[in-house]
Amino acid sequence: MTAIRLYDTTLRDGTQAEEISFLVEDKIRIAEKLDELGIHYIEGGWPGSNPKDIDFFRKIRKASIKQTKIAAFGSTRRAKSTPEKDNNLRTLIQAEPDVITIFGKTWDFHVREALRIGLQENLDLIHDSLVYLKQNVAEVFYDAEHFFDGYKANPEYAINTLRAAQDAGVDCIVLCDTNGGTLPFELPPIIAEVRKHIATPLGIHAHNDSECAVANSLVAIDCGCVHVQGTINGFGERCGNANLCSIIPSLMLKMGKQCLTDQQLVSLREVSRFVYELANLVPNKHQPYVGNSAFAHKGGVHVSAIQRHAETYEHIRPERVGNVSRVLVSDLSGRSNILAKAEQFNIKLDSKDPLTIEILERLKDLENQGYQFEGAEASFDLLMRRALGTLRPFFSVVGFRVIDSKREGEEKPFSEATVQIKVGGHVEHTAAEGNGPVNALDHALRKALENFYPQIKEMQLLDYKVRVLPAGRGTASVTRVLIESGDKTMRWGTVGVSDNIIDASYYALIDAFLYKLLKDSKGT
Amino acid sequence: MTAIRLYDTTLRDGTQAEEISFLVEDKIRIAEKLDELGIHYIEGGWPGSNPKDIDFFRKIRKASIKQTKIAAFGSTRRAKSTPEKDNNLRTLIQAEPDVITIFGKTWDFHVREALRIGLQENLDLIHDSLVYLKQNVAEVFYDAEHFFDGYKANPEYAINTLRAAQDAGVDCIVLCDTNGGTLPFELPPIIAEVRKHIATPLGIHAHNDSECAVANSLVAIDCGCVHVQGTINGFGERCGNANLCSIIPSLMLKMGKQCLTDQQLVSLREVSRFVYELANLVPNKHQPYVGNSAFAHKGGVHVSAIQRHAETYEHIRPERVGNVSRVLVSDLSGRSNILAKAEQFNIKLDSKDPLTIEILERLKDLENQGYQFEGAEASFDLLMRRALGTLRPFFSVVGFRVIDSKREGEEKPFSEATVQIKVGGHVEHTAAEGNGPVNALDHALRKALENFYPQIKEMQLLDYKVRVLPAGRGTASVTRVLIESGDKTMRWGTVGVSDNIIDASYYALIDAFLYKLLKDSKGT
Repeated sequence: MTAIRLYDTTLRDGTQAEEISFLVEDKIRIAEKLDELGIHYIEGGWPGSNPKDIDFFRKIRKASIKQTKIAAFGSTRRAKSTPEKDNNLRTLIQAEPDVITIFGKTWDFHVREALRIGLQENLDLIHDSLVYLKQNVAEVFYDAEHFFDGYKANPEYAINTLRAAQDAGVDCIVLCDTNGGTLPFELPPIIAEVRKHIATPLGIHAHNDSECAVANSLVAIDCGCVHVQGTINGFGERCGNANLCSIIPSLMLKMGKQCLTDQQLVSLREVSRFVYELANLVPNKHQPYVGNSAFAHKGGVHVSAIQRHAETYEHIRPERVGNVSRVLVSDLSGRSNILAKAEQFNIKLDSKDPLTIEILERLKDLENQGYQFEGAEASFDLLMRRALGTLRPFFSVVGFRVIDSKREGEEKPFSEATVQIKVGGHVEHTAAEGNGPVNALDHALRKALENFYPQIKEMQLLDYKVRVLPAGRGTASVTRVLIESGDKTMRWGTVGVSDNIIDASYYALIDAFLYKLLKDSKGT
Repeated sequence: MTAIRLYDTTLRDGTQAEEISFLVEDKIRIAEKLDELGIHYIEGGWPGSNPKDIDFFRKIRKASIKQTKIAAFGSTRRAKSTPEKDNNLRTLIQAEPDVITIFGKTWDFHVREALRIGLQENLDLIHDSLVYLKQNVAEVFYDAEHFFDGYKANPEYAINTLRAAQDAGVDCIVLCDTNGGTLPFELPPIIAEVRKHIATPLGIHAHNDSECAVANSLVAIDCGCVHVQGTINGFGERCGNANLCSIIPSLMLKMGKQCLTDQQLVSLREVSRFVYELANLVPNKHQPYVGNSAFAHKGGVHVSAIQRHAETYEHIRPERVGNVSRVLVSDLSGRSNILAKAEQFNIKLDSKDPLTIEILERLKDLENQGYQFEGAEASFDLLMRRALGTLRPFFSVVGFRVIDSKREGEEKPFSEATVQIKVGGHVEHTAAEGNGPVNALDHALRKALENFYPQIKEMQLLDYKVRVLPAGRGTASVTRVLIESGDKTMRWGTVGVSDNIIDASYYALIDAFLYKLLKDSKGT
């Protein structure tokens, strides 16, 4: 089994993405996490380009890194100088990384137009920069920038740049698709040609501008590359870098390539979410392998089959990457979805029970009104319990009122809500203000409920989504509100629909509180 | 140049995505948009599976479709029956589509375990279902479900299922990677083998579970497939379907395949955003070709090089797909945008005028707050006039108050708004109720304004959209409201942003009224 070396550049190329800006502390934490995952090389930054990256290389020496090698990134020396005098190369060595990776020009056009030097001079500076680095650092990698575009423009010169790197004794030559424009069927003939001339181990560095970064990386490995560069979740400039979270499981589970242990692979989803968290980005639920929806099944046809033979409707077992299968409920779903869902909530339903058919009818009816239970599983659970008559009446709302008012010159309105809640024979009447009417209503409900159920304090409103559904035939438009709530142990979604946005929010809020009380009473 | 046929399944397979639930009206609007884009086939739904899809096929006949053919989707007949008696096949024909596509089983395992019938029986029902459909509809396509997995398990049987379809005279056989587990280098030998036995035109239908859906589609076309199925923005169950927004430009700009006109290709970004909008999803900014960041370049030394030789830093010219290059440091493109917009509204702006720069600054500031002027051109027009000091103060709002209240047992809340409007020296104080707080506020404002400006009676609120924008680092989330208004001569959009939904709606409403008064005073 061939061993493939994983080279992560989340902390360098990944941070080129517009919205990503890691603190040095974030970068250290991510490096430690990637080390645990079993990534072989972590590119920490470009010490020559900014002081934050120099700081990283200072601090990473004290971090708890067990096996990963830390790489510093830079470029070949400037023209009309020597490696010894080149500030960029000196800074790289001073950063004291385990590995240094530098990039150089492959494309003759860029040599002339960007560097504005002769073609031979470029070969010289690739060669002597790498020779100098090899004298100072154990491992040196060479990134051949714009390799595929350069090869298409001038194959002979492109190969010559690789030869200059090979002659300097580098440990790996990385073929870069810098503009991300290469298509998967273009790689095999080019890599075959490279391998005729180059014996140094080859790597691949792909960008996603054609939505082919993962595919191109896998094709390159299939053609004999043994080193792959990418980022966690595919973070990167423009359309992103090759996504290691997709590459790693395909290598291990489909291509029989060795890179992590099976146990490390199970932590893949957790690592993906950890990096999203530190980047302050919402995870992509449709992300292959690790996304929330990656193994979510909606169609009724699929669901009944999947329960019998999961492997025939899932390309891998989700547990291998730390993910799980989920069954969704919607108007496309059949009775088997409802049964599967009920089972998930530990509700006993018999497929022949008329109640099951009733729930299905009720569901279709609600969906026609604009309800949607995907992402609102808690409301679905409550719906089933209401239909079965097994939902304990934790509280009832006697009434509420929400007022928003604004006077000329005030920056924003004043929002205030009053509510009356009844629990058993006791009525609680409270008022609260908020940052908008729904926020005020949430605060007032919470204040009233906390007197009876102190555990309400543990829960938070995490997300609030509104959709105004266009008017149907002869009806007014309706508003659908989705609320996501959470406490220290779990997250749950609820939904409310009404032609009045306050009312829709009210229903979703009530379900959110009810679900908290329900799940705590079950001790889950 | 080979012509490739584009088959869009956004309205069928795309709606399998968890968070997507289109109304019939949305589906009709999307179909009309895809027709304009030049998509050859649009799969509208599975009429046998739910009433919403039957409704679509009824309504699409009255929609303004120019060239696209509408396809209905279904499955082969049930076992132990005949095509004539099969309810699913009958419903397909009754839907009166231009094309019918049915799927059948390729994988011997699924035949035995999911259908629970013999292998020969499956071949029979593929064959006779298709023969029957061909007698009733002009064009019939066959989706070979799980083709690649089935082929790997039992190549001979898999080919036999295709042969059964071919013998029935279908117009295209579509190889489906239903589980999305196939890797790009696996396709060429399999497709080559299929082509030895099958002369019917081949298509490809890929899922993105290995992040290779686009790559696999392109590889299949490179191997001779002439029909490609996918969805706009890659919407679809689990990890999505093959993304037509990435496939189309690669086919046209890189592979020399004919599918749209150059002019149609330019509308690709707009179509992508339109579909996101109707799905109420935030566009993926890193999306290849059409995303906001797809051609965003970080500044520095490369800027001048990009401006001189953009083609060497961009895999395609962004204008080809209706996108633009963005240089993240300077904003020269921004200013020319403003000038173009101003011209559109007949506002005279000088590119050297400091006011132009001021408007640009104000705009950036508003965009940072969450404002977005796409679809809210009326607010943009008002913004420019305010900056130029040329907007007549038609009225001012002294204050407003909105109350929503509900008592136990009432079906929905009572919503009431009061407003004070000042025009010249006169103050009007009115109250009105409504179907929700925004509706009440709209009614009260209208009632007050009509006393001064009777033409307000001619205008109507046509559409109301709300989006809660996720919180940034350390900030509260904000709400963006888009309102579309119209009178007998035109429609206009306005926008309001605030952390309070009533306030955001208030700003959008005020702009809507102001624009009506402005345009009428100009006599347009």
